[in-house]
Amino acid sequence: MKRFTLIGAGLVGSLLSIYLSKRGYKVNVYERRPDLRSNRISAGRSINLALSDRGWRGLDKIGIGDEIRNVALPMKGRVMHGVDGSLSFQPYGKEGQAIYSVSRGGLNCVLMDLAEKHGVELHFQERCTQVDLKTAGAFFENAESGKKTEVQADRVFASDGAFSAGRLQMQLSTDRFNYSQTYLEHGYKELTIPATASGDFAMDPDALHIWPRGTFMLIALPNLDKTFTCTLFFPFEGEFSFRSLDTEEKMMDFFRNTFPDTIPLMPTLRQDYFANPASSLAIVRCFPWSVDDKLLLIGDAAHAIVPFYGQGMNCGFEDCVVLDQLMDAHGEDWHTIFRRFESLRKPDGDAIAELALMNFIEMRDKVGHAEFLLQKKIESWFSAKHPDRWIPLYTMVTFSPDIRYSEALSEGRRQEKIMQEVMALPGIENRWNSREVEDLMLRLLAS
Amino acid sequence: MKRFTLIGAGLVGSLLSIYLSKRGYKVNVYERRPDLRSNRISAGRSINLALSDRGWRGLDKIGIGDEIRNVALPMKGRVMHGVDGSLSFQPYGKEGQAIYSVSRGGLNCVLMDLAEKHGVELHFQERCTQVDLKTAGAFFENAESGKKTEVQADRVFASDGAFSAGRLQMQLSTDRFNYSQTYLEHGYKELTIPATASGDFAMDPDALHIWPRGTFMLIALPNLDKTFTCTLFFPFEGEFSFRSLDTEEKMMDFFRNTFPDTIPLMPTLRQDYFANPASSLAIVRCFPWSVDDKLLLIGDAAHAIVPFYGQGMNCGFEDCVVLDQLMDAHGEDWHTIFRRFESLRKPDGDAIAELALMNFIEMRDKVGHAEFLLQKKIESWFSAKHPDRWIPLYTMVTFSPDIRYSEALSEGRRQEKIMQEVMALPGIENRWNSREVEDLMLRLLAS
Repeated sequence: MKRFTLIGAGLVGSLLSIYLSKRGYKVNVYERRPDLRSNRISAGRSINLALSDRGWRGLDKIGIGDEIRNVALPMKGRVMHGVDGSLSFQPYGKEGQAIYSVSRGGLNCVLMDLAEKHGVELHFQERCTQVDLKTAGAFFENAESGKKTEVQADRVFASDGAFSAGRLQMQLSTDRFNYSQTYLEHGYKELTIPATASGDFAMDPDALHIWPRGTFMLIALPNLDKTFTCTLFFPFEGEFSFRSLDTEEKMMDFFRNTFPDTIPLMPTLRQDYFANPASSLAIVRCFPWSVDDKLLLIGDAAHAIVPFYGQGMNCGFEDCVVLDQLMDAHGEDWHTIFRRFESLRKPDGDAIAELALMNFIEMRDKVGHAEFLLQKKIESWFSAKHPDRWIPLYTMVTFSPDIRYSEALSEGRRQEKIMQEVMALPGIENRWNSREVEDLMLRLLAS
Repeated sequence: MKRFTLIGAGLVGSLLSIYLSKRGYKVNVYERRPDLRSNRISAGRSINLALSDRGWRGLDKIGIGDEIRNVALPMKGRVMHGVDGSLSFQPYGKEGQAIYSVSRGGLNCVLMDLAEKHGVELHFQERCTQVDLKTAGAFFENAESGKKTEVQADRVFASDGAFSAGRLQMQLSTDRFNYSQTYLEHGYKELTIPATASGDFAMDPDALHIWPRGTFMLIALPNLDKTFTCTLFFPFEGEFSFRSLDTEEKMMDFFRNTFPDTIPLMPTLRQDYFANPASSLAIVRCFPWSVDDKLLLIGDAAHAIVPFYGQGMNCGFEDCVVLDQLMDAHGEDWHTIFRRFESLRKPDGDAIAELALMNFIEMRDKVGHAEFLLQKKIESWFSAKHPDRWIPLYTMVTFSPDIRYSEALSEGRRQEKIMQEVMALPGIENRWNSREVEDLMLRLLAS
């Protein structure tokens, strides 16, 4: 029986271990952190995540989609909160389409349980110190006992996230490894909106809430326990920044002026703001993603992105689906599987990295402008009339797992050019759903 | 007495140690390789280098320019070799201006000797395994004895090149460190043209020789022993590549067809080609370059570039000059010195990285075209008439150390736009030095 070593038992590592185990491989997963299930700690990352169709496909293929659906909260669109307290709503897709708020920790626990049911062995508090890229040997050091273990296997999968030890080994000991880590000037801090006194959600739970403020934003996603997890995406430095809001008074003044409707909803803001860390946001790009048939980078280890499209986990789960298809096609020819995987997925990883950056500007700024909302309304109207000619970009990325991220990005760019012409029509706000606009769009699409 | 640790005794580390030692600091330099001086080994990099004005300034400031001038060979311009054996010459600057071919190893030995004369202690075969960024402690392991040493100091300078251990420490243990390493699709292989039977240079020694062939090139620089060191810059993969030329027959056929005039000049081509490695070419960009007042990256550790402008060493020496000026200005305020250094030099490092990439295309392709040579001739003619209005880009980069690389790049871009208009004039080849062209350029400059 072939033996595979996985580094990292996060979302992607746990899911991948199930895919591999189902094919009869002996899978050992080594995780740096303690077991989440006995030790509900934060993994240093966001508490809830938005699952969408690419992610569901990855879960459904191993038969656990429904189990997760039971604990997922549908968000049908965005609710934008103005400074004046006004609300506006923008649906994410058509009737019946939604993205789903799920608990990162809860989902990870379910995946780890299922992995063990399938015979995967999970090892915790094991930090990867080295990988031998010639032999697929991996070396771990136990955080409690200090014990060092050398694990021999047929190949190693590095599913160990944005700061991957497997990828570091490629950087340190292979030639011509292209690598970049790029940090945003923004970081994020998590805050919370508790349930109301009567035990209900304090805001509409069927939506993702956004307070778009131009250069920064606050968002909120609902949790099963009727709370919302809020995330402030905010510059580290500058006039309004994590650095500048350094006293309770400055911070509260800022929130009162900028997010006034949150003040009554966040009774523990003072404590939370100063207790919770400001975490950084990085984009990681690299290539190649493999060494011979010995090591493969997968998930964030290969392509860490910013969270603004809600696609980090979804993209990682799609990696597993693509790898599974390649195992179908190429059997035990792992050289080909790894080469095909990296050449197929690299353009998609690059595309979703760019889309996620673009969506930061959309969420923090554009969604606050009537013109942008009108543009989206026109696209949605036109798409309903001509579903074969126009799928809105958000729909391609989020609800269309048969469209590659790279295809979505290039089609989205073409659409944006067309919409610039449409939006430049005088009086567009009064004739946006006219025959004339429809004809123009059809003409531009054909040209 | 303040103690400074330097990692790396290459060209920049050795020069920097002298600058620091002259100011009365106690400097210990730890070098991974054995002592070059007793052990003339290749440092895995090119054998000779082109010194130009920025580099000379760095050497002259500590009084060793003249010693090096005695062993440097002036190259007044480029000699381009056509496939048909035709030669064309393009001067680098004005009468009297030249870049100088020097031996990397020889220069490094002189700098190390001088460092020791100034009380610097050099330690060899000491590999840096870790830097404590809080205490400026550095840890080394001796390659021969295996002995581990911990060195405490007031601050650490990482002058350890493109694969800097000091920089790796920043990547591994600081937040928000932006980093990229990008490899070209081309690599390089060194070849040699020996002296003639009568003991003379086999080609004109007063020039840098280029065989521009569009997507790749061969170059040659003269050495003191009347040989030339040739470097083939060539793709790793593809129809004509290091991979494809895998037999003596294919390689010799390729050289006969592509560089026919080199065949009689390179009697050991067969052996050299297959004995010498194909090395890779990387660009390293990162930021910040410092941690508090404890660690500073300098030279290639901060900004490794490709060799096509002959500026890697010159830029590193200029780093030392800039640091020296900041020490003059800010005394023992190292926090300020490090901050000012990185904010001043980062744009210049980025600019020379881009200029070096642009010059690859110029050298391998453009210099083989009459139109390009005409453009350079016009610029040179106009510059002679209006030296206050127009300094050619090559001159700004190479012969004008008072102009920052970043200024040269932006001025060069402006000039290029003007020259595109000039070159588009019908019949420009017949009236390039006319009053009309002069007036047009003056008008475009003023607009």
